[in-house]
Amino acid sequence: MTTGHVFIGTSLDGFIARKNDDIAWLTDYPTLGEDHGFNAHMERMDGVIMGRGTYEVIKHFRPWFYSKPVLVLSGSITQTDVPEEIADKVEIVDATPEEAMQLVAGRGWRAAYVDGGKLIQAFLRAGLIEDLVISRIPVLIGEGIPLFGPLGADLVLEHVETQAFPSGLVQSRYRVPGNAA
Amino acid sequence: MTTGHVFIGTSLDGFIARKNDDIAWLTDYPTLGEDHGFNAHMERMDGVIMGRGTYEVIKHFRPWFYSKPVLVLSGSITQTDVPEEIADKVEIVDATPEEAMQLVAGRGWRAAYVDGGKLIQAFLRAGLIEDLVISRIPVLIGEGIPLFGPLGADLVLEHVETQAFPSGLVQSRYRVPGNAA
Repeated sequence: MTTGHVFIGTSLDGFIARKNDDIAWLTDYPTLGEDHGFNAHMERMDGVIMGRGTYEVIKHFRPWFYSKPVLVLSGSITQTDVPEEIADKVEIVDATPEEAMQLVAGRGWRAAYVDGGKLIQAFLRAGLIEDLVISRIPVLIGEGIPLFGPLGADLVLEHVETQAFPSGLVQSRYRVPGNAA
Repeated sequence: MTTGHVFIGTSLDGFIARKNDDIAWLTDYPTLGEDHGFNAHMERMDGVIMGRGTYEVIKHFRPWFYSKPVLVLSGSITQTDVPEEIADKVEIVDATPEEAMQLVAGRGWRAAYVDGGKLIQAFLRAGLIEDLVISRIPVLIGEGIPLFGPLGADLVLEHVETQAFPSGLVQSRYRVPGNAA
């Protein structure tokens, strides 16, 4: 079965975007040329699964951001909504987290990069996340779209490692017990 | 002027308590005998300023938890509401954050431990916090009382240091620029 992996940046108060989807506070953060491991993370992934909210934000990025196939889970948009320039890179699928993981497992994906707040929460609830790398930017933005949300029950994670960078970014990796490959 | 200091534990999803004020997920967390610096922090403080919400939780603790004077900011309870056993240790004051800091400055406090989610937020908005030590427990509790809340504007903090403990607790210290003593 394919394993799900989170790699995401948040404000110190736990938001992944402002309520209007603005992430300039994140993308404009002065990272001093530091390598926070995103490229190495992408190398290990066979593709990306994201929700519609994240897709709506990143679909405008040019040059196209992802070197691996992107699956967008949505019941409200379809493949015909995808801009032509990225139509061979993005696939819209109306599927549950479980169905999506079965689909990509059938395609030989061993590891899926799961992105977007609501989708990460849904994959966590479904027990489909193996680990999370959370990079905290030292800024409080007050309100926004939270990384985490309601769960059916407490979820105790295993802390793997934490690295603090000179820019002030603090990156921690957590494993979800029982969801190892 | 007295400086304000935060030293607080949160869940990985940023809560300081469940909605019913339960903090067993925090107090029962197996810390493996680690010293997370609370006693050293208290040594540096001249007293504690907390909100009524936090007071209602900790007022039942016996033996009494604090070695320094405790000021509770509240407009809804008064000194007569304080249990007799701790009446000489707790003072209820109906004051704004600024008024409270002026009051304790007049008493010679150099450093105040500011505790409780809403009070920390109010002190942050008022520019009265010099630094924050945040200890993250590796558990997602889904919902609860958040440490942080709305601010008038983004607040960029300066990361000072981060330490990861074998128990999985990750402790970071941040300084609020411009609010140094």
